[in-house]
Amino acid sequence: MVLYQMLAGHPHVDGVDLYGHNLTEPVALASAVPQFVGATDVVLQPYSEQVVMAQDDVVFFATSAGVTRTAAVPYITAGFPMIDLSGDLRLKQPDLYTQWYHKPAAAKQILAQTHYGLSDLQSSAGMAAIANPGCYATATLLGLAPLVQSGLIMTDSIIVDAKSGTSGAGKHPGELTHFSQANENLQVYKVNQHQHIPEILQQLQVWDQSIAAIQFNTTLLPITRGLMSTIYARVWPDVTAAAIDEAFTSTFADVAGVRYTGDRLPNLKEVVGTDYCDVGAVFNPTTGMVMVVSVIDNLIKGAGGQAIQNMNQMFGFPEMAGEPVNVILP
Amino acid sequence: MVLYQMLAGHPHVDGVDLYGHNLTEPVALASAVPQFVGATDVVLQPYSEQVVMAQDDVVFFATSAGVTRTAAVPYITAGFPMIDLSGDLRLKQPDLYTQWYHKPAAAKQILAQTHYGLSDLQSSAGMAAIANPGCYATATLLGLAPLVQSGLIMTDSIIVDAKSGTSGAGKHPGELTHFSQANENLQVYKVNQHQHIPEILQQLQVWDQSIAAIQFNTTLLPITRGLMSTIYARVWPDVTAAAIDEAFTSTFADVAGVRYTGDRLPNLKEVVGTDYCDVGAVFNPTTGMVMVVSVIDNLIKGAGGQAIQNMNQMFGFPEMAGEPVNVILP
Amino acid sequence: MVLYQMLAGHPHVDGVDLYGHNLTEPVALASAVPQFVGATDVVLQPYSEQVVMAQDDVVFFATSAGVTRTAAVPYITAGFPMIDLSGDLRLKQPDLYTQWYHKPAAAKQILAQTHYGLSDLQSSAGMAAIANPGCYATATLLGLAPLVQSGLIMTDSIIVDAKSGTSGAGKHPGELTHFSQANENLQVYKVNQHQHIPEILQQLQVWDQSIAAIQFNTTLLPITRGLMSTIYARVWPDVTAAAIDEAFTSTFADVAGVRYTGDRLPNLKEVVGTDYCDVGAVFNPTTGMVMVVSVIDNLIKGAGGQAIQNMNQMFGFPEMAGEPVNVILP
Amino acid sequence: MVLYQMLAGHPHVDGVDLYGHNLTEPVALASAVPQFVGATDVVLQPYSEQVVMAQDDVVFFATSAGVTRTAAVPYITAGFPMIDLSGDLRLKQPDLYTQWYHKPAAAKQILAQTHYGLSDLQSSAGMAAIANPGCYATATLLGLAPLVQSGLIMTDSIIVDAKSGTSGAGKHPGELTHFSQANENLQVYKVNQHQHIPEILQQLQVWDQSIAAIQFNTTLLPITRGLMSTIYARVWPDVTAAAIDEAFTSTFADVAGVRYTGDRLPNLKEVVGTDYCDVGAVFNPTTGMVMVVSVIDNLIKGAGGQAIQNMNQMFGFPEMAGEPVNVILP
Repeated sequence: MVLYQMLAGHPHVDGVDLYGHNLTEPVALASAVPQFVGATDVVLQPYSEQVVMAQDDVVFFATSAGVTRTAAVPYITAGFPMIDLSGDLRLKQPDLYTQWYHKPAAAKQILAQTHYGLSDLQSSAGMAAIANPGCYATATLLGLAPLVQSGLIMTDSIIVDAKSGTSGAGKHPGELTHFSQANENLQVYKVNQHQHIPEILQQLQVWDQSIAAIQFNTTLLPITRGLMSTIYARVWPDVTAAAIDEAFTSTFADVAGVRYTGDRLPNLKEVVGTDYCDVGAVFNPTTGMVMVVSVIDNLIKGAGGQAIQNMNQMFGFPEMAGEPVNVILP
Repeated sequence: MVLYQMLAGHPHVDGVDLYGHNLTEPVALASAVPQFVGATDVVLQPYSEQVVMAQDDVVFFATSAGVTRTAAVPYITAGFPMIDLSGDLRLKQPDLYTQWYHKPAAAKQILAQTHYGLSDLQSSAGMAAIANPGCYATATLLGLAPLVQSGLIMTDSIIVDAKSGTSGAGKHPGELTHFSQANENLQVYKVNQHQHIPEILQQLQVWDQSIAAIQFNTTLLPITRGLMSTIYARVWPDVTAAAIDEAFTSTFADVAGVRYTGDRLPNLKEVVGTDYCDVGAVFNPTTGMVMVVSVIDNLIKGAGGQAIQNMNQMFGFPEMAGEPVNVILP
Repeated sequence: MVLYQMLAGHPHVDGVDLYGHNLTEPVALASAVPQFVGATDVVLQPYSEQVVMAQDDVVFFATSAGVTRTAAVPYITAGFPMIDLSGDLRLKQPDLYTQWYHKPAAAKQILAQTHYGLSDLQSSAGMAAIANPGCYATATLLGLAPLVQSGLIMTDSIIVDAKSGTSGAGKHPGELTHFSQANENLQVYKVNQHQHIPEILQQLQVWDQSIAAIQFNTTLLPITRGLMSTIYARVWPDVTAAAIDEAFTSTFADVAGVRYTGDRLPNLKEVVGTDYCDVGAVFNPTTGMVMVVSVIDNLIKGAGGQAIQNMNQMFGFPEMAGEPVNVILP
Repeated sequence: MVLYQMLAGHPHVDGVDLYGHNLTEPVALASAVPQFVGATDVVLQPYSEQVVMAQDDVVFFATSAGVTRTAAVPYITAGFPMIDLSGDLRLKQPDLYTQWYHKPAAAKQILAQTHYGLSDLQSSAGMAAIANPGCYATATLLGLAPLVQSGLIMTDSIIVDAKSGTSGAGKHPGELTHFSQANENLQVYKVNQHQHIPEILQQLQVWDQSIAAIQFNTTLLPITRGLMSTIYARVWPDVTAAAIDEAFTSTFADVAGVRYTGDRLPNLKEVVGTDYCDVGAVFNPTTGMVMVVSVIDNLIKGAGGQAIQNMNQMFGFPEMAGEPVNVILP
């Protein structure tokens, strides 16, 4: 829905067609989502790849794991612009996907043709098939990139304590997200099992092959929107606070969707409702460690907002076109 | 669980046996509820009324609607002390039960033998079978009693805007109580259909037969614990603020479980974690209406805490014995 | 800030100048509000009415009570478009303002020249000076309008149980809004003293002179954004559910900013992040009362969003131009 | 207040006297705290050490930093039982106190006579002067003790990502704890400056002198009660999951106030409302790191509850006597 709203308001998008995989006949969006009553008469159509290819210029998949493994193939084969928000096409090695997702993987050559669209650091310009990064992966990779790319940290020392609101868990009620359970609570989940671990590692290894593993932990916050990755790593001897600051400053100097806040660490309210990733970093000379705090709106930068950035890059639109105005703050 | 904890800590209770209707073999409480690990080695037993009657002095039912209609019968017939926390035995007329609960009702003579245990206003001393009041009914009836019993208000003018936290909805996840839906939200539910409406009305009519109906509304709050009934009614001409104050003061003068706060209106934090109902009342001379705010902890005064008050009265223990110390406030 | 963001993204607004009453020299907006770092290089200027009149086409005041009483005078005198978001210019009678705001009032002829901009029901087209309605007043008046204008309800029977999130209380910490106090709580405040009471009454009397008073209560919710007015009133004998439905349907048939949801009562999530007021109504034949639930985002429809609607009407822009896309829902 | 409530309900405590440092005449507790109306007629007395020593058997200080530095001296000198909940007497080196608290420190010999009352690991039996540990220090030290005491981890690898609810910040409103700011947010604060850092380090060094520093971070949660320390450390080569499990099991085998949950990581709801510290630990063979999750109620185990444990040990009462029954869970 957030993705639809952003596309519907995008200055370079003429129209948005909505399709439902399980629909057999059209359904008015407003009948499914009360918020849209009066605001739109858009109708969800039964999904058909023939119709999509005939009517649309790009297709977004906001489907569960296991769908685009096959559903994306015709688009990729045809070179039709495709952006997949699921995890199906992110991992280059099929067996890794099966290990972490417990499902059959897409074919290796399909994975090879898909670009990992971490849009702020590796542009999707010129690409046709995009795997849109996961929410935890986005915040964590943007927070780690300057340190890893500059070789400032010991590569076996990376620890990520990540926290997310419940909207990342989707719309279906469950035990962890039952209000009486989640409210006024903090719950660690998927210990050492989160499927974003191999995704993060794969990209870190693109930047530095010597990184063999990361310690990565996820905690469910008693909030709806927002995600924070708190990152710890040991710097090499003689690395200074100034060198760290320089690495972040230069990495994000020309990056539209990341704001480096220096040693003032950002909080969630600064980014919820926007497509920004805010990143701050503090060096602790006593311990020789650097702490990075990287925050995003998990449903915007961590999903639909970054998907739009990828589309903007594919089609040559201004990088942040159509990204939402933040009207959340009081 | 709250009931169990209070009973386990009750100074006049020697032991608590726990039974599960659906159990076929014993289960350690701590294996079901992590909070009790180390704190107790109590075991839940398969339910058997023979065992209960042989081993225990009183039985509490904390079951869903539809169970005690039959399960309570042997105890009531035998005159064995029984306190039912479900709604099955509250309404004296079987057809009313069926109309509001959409289930078969208990037999009329069983209902006739059950005392409606609104413990602060009608003692359970000398009673054997108790229907413990519903949470909304408790807060609303305690807030209305002084006005109705003193004849200060027009009997067709009662409006109750009641609000409750999600714990009243139980432990099972549902759409209304999904965190992403309930958090930062306010949801009206069961409009004019809440099963506490006939329960409240039945008791009001005990106090004043001329009351034919009440306007009663329930709203789900984005909190776990706590319930507020905001009550509006029109007073008869010439009724003064002093008369209203006098009605509340005298009604609650010797009532252990209700605290009248005068025209300072109480908030939820003042009662959550306690068995108190706090009640404040403000007369508005401009409109001729009185507003009453009545707050309780829905799981204590609105359930297990009042059940213990009823037990205390049945057995002649001090009225508030075993009621929890409030350790919730910062 | 919400107002600024909406204006900055408005399709018919070319530029936005920000002024601070207390500034003696320019300050970068981003230095005051971290969210704007990188997103804007806008600078707050020291306020000067000469500069405003020379450079701008319309002025918005988002000031505390007591400022526009004098500050708005030059604009009103000059016929320069002015929209005041404070309460200073809403009440037509100076003594009423002084009684409820405990401050000196604006001059009577200034008040007489100001239009009460309840934009969905009385257009600001052709007006120059606008008093933008209060948040509680907006939700309450939109919920009551169909009933009052159609003469369906007894005019002395109106009761409003209104609830609002903490953002309505502004940015300055206080006891009621201290997190440990407000969280998991519900607090009634300003009992029979809320300054929106005379504002609501004044407008109701425009629609029906016989309305002498309303019972109106405000409760602080443990959420940041969102406001619900739950309205109760007794209908005249023989008024049917169909007549009530017809009144709401016809009143809001051509109103851009209000969505009538019939007897499905709206919740806060449906409107937070938008400029919509959603209104539902349910007739209770047992009590002869109608219950209306009216919900808004207190910072958008209840403040800046309605101010923009007023501007749109003044300047002939499309009614909902520049109103935010709702990106809050998961 | 939580401390008072627990003492008032303690089975081995006959009476509780309350004193206020700034009082010049007695004040009824119920007049200051509405929750106590009707529940107690206790009166706060102006503080006088003569009266305390004459009337009471033990004194608790729940004062701000800077008070007990001098106020505790007469009791310590006299050997009168004293438990200080402030940070004044925790650090053995005066200059360290001054460095982290920015205040004058207590005299070195006073500090030397004070026992650091981490009650679950170093008993206060036989002690007269107790410095009750800080909330973060308690959770962190209990989580680290088995690893450090058993020598399983590399001593320069300790990283603590700690999170706490707002009640730790006290009753006075501030910017960080303003509801509109704290709600739906996550805020890192006191980066590398938290005064519990030297307190934790001092105790770790008691267990292993080679520990020179820890990386310790604090984040403010949008909840009222509860504290989680997520601890990461690198184990020595060849350390196994079984060895880690054995260390925790044996350390806490006879400890009344700590529950080891194995590799099931505890959440806040399991301990809020209790004096338990729940600790779980998971070894990650891929990274060679162990993650420990340690949770407490910051106002009970992290303050008053541990103070009572210390009193129980001093006076030979049962270890967990008077600790609250958890009635918070739904």
